[in-house]
Amino acid sequence: MITLIKNARIITLDESFRIIWNGYIVVEDMTFTRVEEGEPDQQLIDVADRIRDARGEWLMPGLYNTHGHAAMTLMRGYEDNLPLDRWLKEKIWPFEGQLTREAVAAGRALAMSEMISSGTIGFLEMYHLYMDDFAEEIERVGMRAALTRSVIGLCSREEQDAKLEESASFATRWSGAAYNRIQTMLAPHAPYTCPIDYIERIVDKAEELGLPVHMHLAETKKEVDDYQKIHKMHPLDHLDERGLLTRVPWLFAHGVHLEKHHLKRMSETHARVSHNPMSNLKLGSGMAPLTAMLDQGISVSIGCDGVSANNTLDLWEELRIAVLLQKGLLQKADALSVEQALRMITSEGASALQTGHSGMIKAGEEADFIMIDATSPHLQPEQHIHSHLVYAAKGSDVTDVYVQGKALMENRELLTLDKERTRFEANKEFADILSRVN
Amino acid sequence: MITLIKNARIITLDESFRIIWNGYIVVEDMTFTRVEEGEPDQQLIDVADRIRDARGEWLMPGLYNTHGHAAMTLMRGYEDNLPLDRWLKEKIWPFEGQLTREAVAAGRALAMSEMISSGTIGFLEMYHLYMDDFAEEIERVGMRAALTRSVIGLCSREEQDAKLEESASFATRWSGAAYNRIQTMLAPHAPYTCPIDYIERIVDKAEELGLPVHMHLAETKKEVDDYQKIHKMHPLDHLDERGLLTRVPWLFAHGVHLEKHHLKRMSETHARVSHNPMSNLKLGSGMAPLTAMLDQGISVSIGCDGVSANNTLDLWEELRIAVLLQKGLLQKADALSVEQALRMITSEGASALQTGHSGMIKAGEEADFIMIDATSPHLQPEQHIHSHLVYAAKGSDVTDVYVQGKALMENRELLTLDKERTRFEANKEFADILSRVN
Repeated sequence: MITLIKNARIITLDESFRIIWNGYIVVEDMTFTRVEEGEPDQQLIDVADRIRDARGEWLMPGLYNTHGHAAMTLMRGYEDNLPLDRWLKEKIWPFEGQLTREAVAAGRALAMSEMISSGTIGFLEMYHLYMDDFAEEIERVGMRAALTRSVIGLCSREEQDAKLEESASFATRWSGAAYNRIQTMLAPHAPYTCPIDYIERIVDKAEELGLPVHMHLAETKKEVDDYQKIHKMHPLDHLDERGLLTRVPWLFAHGVHLEKHHLKRMSETHARVSHNPMSNLKLGSGMAPLTAMLDQGISVSIGCDGVSANNTLDLWEELRIAVLLQKGLLQKADALSVEQALRMITSEGASALQTGHSGMIKAGEEADFIMIDATSPHLQPEQHIHSHLVYAAKGSDVTDVYVQGKALMENRELLTLDKERTRFEANKEFADILSRVN
Repeated sequence: MITLIKNARIITLDESFRIIWNGYIVVEDMTFTRVEEGEPDQQLIDVADRIRDARGEWLMPGLYNTHGHAAMTLMRGYEDNLPLDRWLKEKIWPFEGQLTREAVAAGRALAMSEMISSGTIGFLEMYHLYMDDFAEEIERVGMRAALTRSVIGLCSREEQDAKLEESASFATRWSGAAYNRIQTMLAPHAPYTCPIDYIERIVDKAEELGLPVHMHLAETKKEVDDYQKIHKMHPLDHLDERGLLTRVPWLFAHGVHLEKHHLKRMSETHARVSHNPMSNLKLGSGMAPLTAMLDQGISVSIGCDGVSANNTLDLWEELRIAVLLQKGLLQKADALSVEQALRMITSEGASALQTGHSGMIKAGEEADFIMIDATSPHLQPEQHIHSHLVYAAKGSDVTDVYVQGKALMENRELLTLDKERTRFEANKEFADILSRVN
């Protein structure tokens, strides 16, 4: 199967950061075989099974959302005004206590619909229920994902071990599945919910299995203060003291309340960060030192977190807020460049999720890409495309989404998920749970 | 002409903040004659000239953007990394020096297209070129606007007087035009570009004509520091010392760098604020004390500023950032309620622009409303509509826009502006100017 897309503006986001103002791509099966400037020759036109004229569209890499809880998507707007600790205890955990297998499926389908509709092709899922179902769905839906069956360690040693075993066996079972679109990690929930000994055993297991470890870190000041009262040190220092930072690749979510020496240590140990600005703002957690992280050479990508704390999965807006926030916070209009910004939602995201994909449009790479309707008023004049992608584009501008050469959305129609059914199920399952919680 | 819209979820945003979960509205000519729960009776169906079934849609008030420079819309993405003072001097003013009448028209049409497409029905324009053209366009396009021919006073007394005269005569000519959709104000650009004597003469004139005054205020720390070095006081204290705060209704844009006593004085003198968070962040100006303003009882509405400093005119996103920013800044998840938030882009906006409209959906009020496609994944589950409007909705969710009973957009098709022509002109005029600036 050979697909030719011509007359496209190609925003490669490759190492050279070049834009091909008028060019074409050739996709053979799962792979880009050509990414070129100009017009395709007649020979190419003759062999193509499918030719698309992309005039008025931008073609660029798909986006990566590196921290979230898709299963919680039914909780969108369920509570908007509580800080993290009360929000979890009073609203989220009671709601989650009522989640059925069907409700979790409905939430995940809704999240995937929203992500694909806004150009996200890969995401990280940190959750503890029905993860095998999710892996099967991803296989069918066609997205990329890093899946973690996360664990909370506030329980007996037996329960801790059982959870870790379940987590590790899930990770082993699915790592590399779906033509390598699925990767897995181990995931202690957070230092305040997992005793350090348990985290150490999780790291032992991850090292043995060759897996990265994902964890919430220093999300709120209260959590860090409480931790310091008990352990006389910051959770990151505790991990470091135990020698855990250097043993596995870490992907930390949040990292809002970190000191300078933490950033230095994270850089030295190649720990990655998933920055979740909207969730951090909305829950009143604060503003992570994104610019300082980048200055330290830390690989930072962007996560939307669960929609119950966001409340959308639109990476364009998430990125825009990340960038604007740094400029405002530092009162420095050049705090971040558009290149740094776009890398966070493409190549850095692809690397954080261990996809093995560069997150760039180039020949030889797997054919992951999205297309954007460039005719809307908010993208005019068209000249400064990179700027528009950071400062003006919306999820709704995305018209087409391809992963490994397969279309997940065309002309804004989802092809591997049923929008109407997803909507129906989401509303039905949400109402069912509400009737039980209240 | 009687229009009946039935089976709608009506988000009234009226004094009671009620949602009518299934109801109907009747529009007779320019006015809502009925806003009711339930099904319309047969008699109503019989007399209606037009009936629309709004199942799956939300009907709510249109939005107001209370500070901006639509004429500068061609400069979107032209420069993203300079602080306000260098950005003006090195990029914006040289570009503006090349603006032709056609280029200004192209920028304005683009801005109006973007605003209508995202549900904004009224806006404030602060600009100095071809304002009569703009008033005529607004008459034709059907939006609401507060128009100000702004003045910069760094010139001779003769020039100052000529500008003020032009400004006042423009304001007199257009106030109340287009069935009262056009209001006018006088507008000294800012304290750092208008000597206090000149501002005083402008206030004299505004008082004489019964007009409000609009001005940039305390946008950057540098501007305030410089002003204090010269005048030994904050610009707002200077206005107050001259007795100017109490003489006319003020609408200040920005108000980023204000002390507590300033907020108190603004509240006492009923000065209004247009809060522009994205522009303030992007130019590195800082974060305005929005919550403190609201706590003081100041009427705050939201502005998108010029797209050269934003870079979009999507009030949904602007509002969301305003709210999230306060929650993050104060590390307080309940810093602002959804009701406070939605009022800022509806009723407070309508009042800031002196429309005489309540910004609510209710019988007897002029028939301004927008409709939203409520079927998208990011608006599910549908239950918490007010929350979704603040935390999840996008400009692209808006399908229909009506002002005074007249459709400006239906099913996302602009009816009073030509999208393709607007796009063409914007790109052409931008390229022309670039070729002259460089």
